[in-house]
Amino acid sequence: MLTFVGLGLYDERSVTVRGAAAIAAADRCFAEFYTSRLVGTDVETLAATHDVDLEVRDRAGVEEDPEPILSAAADGEAVFCTAGDPMISTTHVDLRLRAIDRDIDTRVIHGTTAQTAASSLTGLQNYRFGKATTLPFEGTHGTSGVPESVVETVTGNRERDLHTLVYLDIDPRRDAYMRGADAAALLRDAGLDGLGVVVGQAGSDEPTVRADRLASLADEDFGPPLHLLVLPGSLHALEADALARLAGAPADLLPER
Amino acid sequence: MLTFVGLGLYDERSVTVRGAAAIAAADRCFAEFYTSRLVGTDVETLAATHDVDLEVRDRAGVEEDPEPILSAAADGEAVFCTAGDPMISTTHVDLRLRAIDRDIDTRVIHGTTAQTAASSLTGLQNYRFGKATTLPFEGTHGTSGVPESVVETVTGNRERDLHTLVYLDIDPRRDAYMRGADAAALLRDAGLDGLGVVVGQAGSDEPTVRADRLASLADEDFGPPLHLLVLPGSLHALEADALARLAGAPADLLPER
Repeated sequence: MLTFVGLGLYDERSVTVRGAAAIAAADRCFAEFYTSRLVGTDVETLAATHDVDLEVRDRAGVEEDPEPILSAAADGEAVFCTAGDPMISTTHVDLRLRAIDRDIDTRVIHGTTAQTAASSLTGLQNYRFGKATTLPFEGTHGTSGVPESVVETVTGNRERDLHTLVYLDIDPRRDAYMRGADAAALLRDAGLDGLGVVVGQAGSDEPTVRADRLASLADEDFGPPLHLLVLPGSLHALEADALARLAGAPADLLPER
Repeated sequence: MLTFVGLGLYDERSVTVRGAAAIAAADRCFAEFYTSRLVGTDVETLAATHDVDLEVRDRAGVEEDPEPILSAAADGEAVFCTAGDPMISTTHVDLRLRAIDRDIDTRVIHGTTAQTAASSLTGLQNYRFGKATTLPFEGTHGTSGVPESVVETVTGNRERDLHTLVYLDIDPRRDAYMRGADAAALLRDAGLDGLGVVVGQAGSDEPTVRADRLASLADEDFGPPLHLLVLPGSLHALEADALARLAGAPADLLPER
């Protein structure tokens, strides 16, 4: 059996009780932190909390050489842990399909995600979000500034009066996580200024939630990563209330209440 | 302190370790199951698992008479539990803002959600989902069939080649949960036939995931609720692979591979 376990948003306590039980029951416990990271903990703490030997794989060790994971799953109970949800954005669907090809039973134990936190912490209604997008580090997409696809997603959502969740790039190889301020500056420079909401440390006991003009957010410090950015469409009354009181949105950026 | 705890998707083990710790540390533990339900457990099991007295409130007991909850939070540690994530769709933002008005500290402990499961279990990429919608029971929206707003959301997403997550109505007062088959029939009759994916028992160890034409799904049984339905836009190669092998999608509904 190969059980994919989502470790959730933030630290060693973000996993579900079901996920923790699967880890405890496993013969072998693999993990990857190249698609995202639990910034509130480290591998040693995770391993100690679950009292397991955590075998961390890099991208090549999962995508190019999945054999050790598949063998362990064929021979016994193997778990494969990731931050967030293990299948979000189809990250590990390929590994799951390879296991199924070998007649290995698979199971998915969900984790809490940035997508959920984006609406939950800001008070913006989840069914008013359109397509999401990811803002890459400059230079990683062959050009400077903001990729046209990001601008199109935001503009398309705005035309339909929908909120946009902007995931911010991470590069685990150099331990680099795009900051909300840098993202706000990039988007402002791309001509997308307006109200933005930065969420930092989602899943922790004291997340940061700040709403302001992108030009203002570009000068703020939102604490340690991970950060994400939401560009709201028009605001319903309760959403405006929430942004004012949970995120300190300036009154002149909100509809009359 | 008022801590909102998401109990997650399915049963008493779907809560996070952080959420379980908050429940264990609380002086008073409130819950509501009118916005959603944990179909894999019941109140007695939840209370016994966490060894607490679980005070279940109906909608009126939260929205019209929040005073007991707020008083408990002003006087000590109170937790307020819901299925899924406690703030998704701004369900309990109003209660949180009332607490803040009274200078009560608040905290949100996220839960796993149907939104995450919709992409995670189907293999459809989460950033290819457009706006989500909810399909209500016939008669509850003043007319028969499918509300125009639902048709518009699906059509708008299809035009932009995005997937649509369709939440299915629940009515806890009469313990009624719309089935995937009934939803497929309603949408087929509204002229939206095409490929659909039904997910049932998300968050359990053996969820149901089935992809087929809506007209075919309308005749199937997907097991006990909760169900949700996804109407995909065009499929990328890995998405098509996933729907074929995880959901049994017929080859003639998938792009050439």
